[in-house]
Amino acid sequence: MKVLVLNSGSSSLKYQFIDTDTEVALCKGVVDRIGLPGAFIRHQKNGQEIIKEQDVRDHNVAIKLVLEMLTHPQMGIIKSMDEIDAIGHRVVHGGEYFSDAVIVNEEVKKAIRECIELAPLHNPANLMGIEACEKEIPGKPNVAVFDTAFHQTMPKYAYMYSIPYEMYEKYKIRKYGFHGTSHKYVAIKAAEYLKRPLEELKLITCHLGNGSSVCAIKYGKSVDTSMGFTPLAGLAMGTRSGTIDPAVILYLMEKENMDVKQMNDLLNKKSGVLGISGVSSDFRDLERAANEGNERAQLAIDMFCYRVKKYIGEYAAVLGGVDAIVFTAGIGENNAIVRDKCLTDLEYMGVLYDKERNFNAEKGKVFEINKPESKVKVLIVPTNEELMIARETKRLLEK
Amino acid sequence: MKVLVLNSGSSSLKYQFIDTDTEVALCKGVVDRIGLPGAFIRHQKNGQEIIKEQDVRDHNVAIKLVLEMLTHPQMGIIKSMDEIDAIGHRVVHGGEYFSDAVIVNEEVKKAIRECIELAPLHNPANLMGIEACEKEIPGKPNVAVFDTAFHQTMPKYAYMYSIPYEMYEKYKIRKYGFHGTSHKYVAIKAAEYLKRPLEELKLITCHLGNGSSVCAIKYGKSVDTSMGFTPLAGLAMGTRSGTIDPAVILYLMEKENMDVKQMNDLLNKKSGVLGISGVSSDFRDLERAANEGNERAQLAIDMFCYRVKKYIGEYAAVLGGVDAIVFTAGIGENNAIVRDKCLTDLEYMGVLYDKERNFNAEKGKVFEINKPESKVKVLIVPTNEELMIARETKRLLEK
Repeated sequence: MKVLVLNSGSSSLKYQFIDTDTEVALCKGVVDRIGLPGAFIRHQKNGQEIIKEQDVRDHNVAIKLVLEMLTHPQMGIIKSMDEIDAIGHRVVHGGEYFSDAVIVNEEVKKAIRECIELAPLHNPANLMGIEACEKEIPGKPNVAVFDTAFHQTMPKYAYMYSIPYEMYEKYKIRKYGFHGTSHKYVAIKAAEYLKRPLEELKLITCHLGNGSSVCAIKYGKSVDTSMGFTPLAGLAMGTRSGTIDPAVILYLMEKENMDVKQMNDLLNKKSGVLGISGVSSDFRDLERAANEGNERAQLAIDMFCYRVKKYIGEYAAVLGGVDAIVFTAGIGENNAIVRDKCLTDLEYMGVLYDKERNFNAEKGKVFEINKPESKVKVLIVPTNEELMIARETKRLLEK
Repeated sequence: MKVLVLNSGSSSLKYQFIDTDTEVALCKGVVDRIGLPGAFIRHQKNGQEIIKEQDVRDHNVAIKLVLEMLTHPQMGIIKSMDEIDAIGHRVVHGGEYFSDAVIVNEEVKKAIRECIELAPLHNPANLMGIEACEKEIPGKPNVAVFDTAFHQTMPKYAYMYSIPYEMYEKYKIRKYGFHGTSHKYVAIKAAEYLKRPLEELKLITCHLGNGSSVCAIKYGKSVDTSMGFTPLAGLAMGTRSGTIDPAVILYLMEKENMDVKQMNDLLNKKSGVLGISGVSSDFRDLERAANEGNERAQLAIDMFCYRVKKYIGEYAAVLGGVDAIVFTAGIGENNAIVRDKCLTDLEYMGVLYDKERNFNAEKGKVFEINKPESKVKVLIVPTNEELMIARETKRLLEK
């Protein structure tokens, strides 16, 4: 099956065209600055790239442009749209409606629309992408794959916040969790690598990137995760604060005379390792600065890793012990220093981590960084959310 | 040495008169409704009690009343004020100024005053208590024992929040932690019981009461704790939310059109197990309701215990394994159901907990509830903050 995977943002549209039989992305690209001056499409195939500047009024035009590239005489991969079997859409928020991916129909779109309240920046764009496909690629099935769906298996005592219960009833305020597609993908990959059924494994998956979250996976099901009602919660991130004492927020609003919007801005865009270091949200910059003696850059790295490690400990308790710890995403796959700091002194829970293997890890494949005798395996697993979306799309359509 | 221990609130003054040689409270009591109609003192000695109603204009009058009781012909314990060797004061917030108890002088009072910003409800009352003693018990040394002091040993990567660094410089926003006197006291008691030096032990102490916090203690020093900038952070409590996704706060303020004060009120007074259950902040009420089939009461208990357990896991990772887990305070000492839920499935970290001993624990003494072969000891240790304050007072004055 050939699946067009779309990740629609408010002014961008990322795509991959994936053959689910070979699991290879035949081509991919991005339409950027949709609705803005200077819009363009960047399309890649076999290491070659084409960039085309063009006005892109809306997501319909963007989709048309993607189809034009897919059928491009040199850079394309198909002769006609008929060769697209389905479209798989990343949708950020499925609320409590969706605990799995779903074939899109009117009812599904209504539910996605009802979740806009919970993801005002993402769900409208995701919906635009779906509707553009319905119009421009008529007759082909659209599948919605939700970031939140994988975490819908959390028990109630894990997903509820200890604020008045009415706030849950009234606004559906609860923990949802995000990065579900990635956590699920790397969990499956880890099980494959370990040659054990996912249904028997207790896993902690650490998706560490510009946005970061940790997930406790028991027998294939998410039982807790560090992000919450929104992707602001949990770990410190590039520019996001993660979880802090609630009173700090109220104290600062009063002292600095900030309103809700300004505070949201501070916590989402000016905090995290950027806020602490004053240097950058990028860990490569932080490491460089730390090596040059910048104490705040070092502090930011230390704080980030300390909190990852605390989640590993926390989820080990939640799971009652762990079979494997998995690192993935930009930082998790590529940053040996971060992994090193997260993994020291965990012998008490059966982790015998191999420093040398960690610092010489091979990239782009599942790589084991524990000592052979370690009870708990520690794996680096490259994530691939687009492939997971393509797989989910195929699974649903073949049902 | 005979020490008068005072715990001053804005409208109350609790006291104990302690002989530090025998470590016995010779008498104790409370002056309540200071500055309000219906003020009274309740004084207890050897199981007998006397209540006297009287106008109590301010803390000076309250102290006079305490002294009157201490020297009371029948209910008193001393002949004259000369027999009071020192006064030990509980002070809630010592900011970054105090990492230990301290003999009060003008400089100390200035620093306590500067911490009012950080504890606007408590520090002014604590200061009033000190100043009343200086006036009414002249010539006797006053010692300030801070709730925050014990936690001043936390490393910077543990106490900083990942918000802009300037907020720390400008407002001293960081994690301080509270209940330090209790965590320290039970840690010492645990070491005595285990017949091992505190300096060799890795402990997790769970102070679970109407306010609750967990502390990671490495070789006698606090290295992390669940409360934060304020006592709102960390665990769900009787009426306090504990830590939640910061975005929830901002979302609710917008949706419910609440200002900072109203939000503070909601998080401090209407949340926690009360907010979830809608029944009570008291665990005895919750258990009764849960037994009668109230699902939200059961959920509140489950959520509370789940979060304690997560902190145990988290701090095990912080400490790199643990020698003993300690339960203390109202819930920690008395609620076997809570302890049971916190302690199940921790075999992976060496905890072999003994259910039967837990449910048949003897009260009022250090009691072990692990199986004999358990690598990690689990202890119930009755706390005694007043005694700890008396001890600290003695230690400082004998230096």
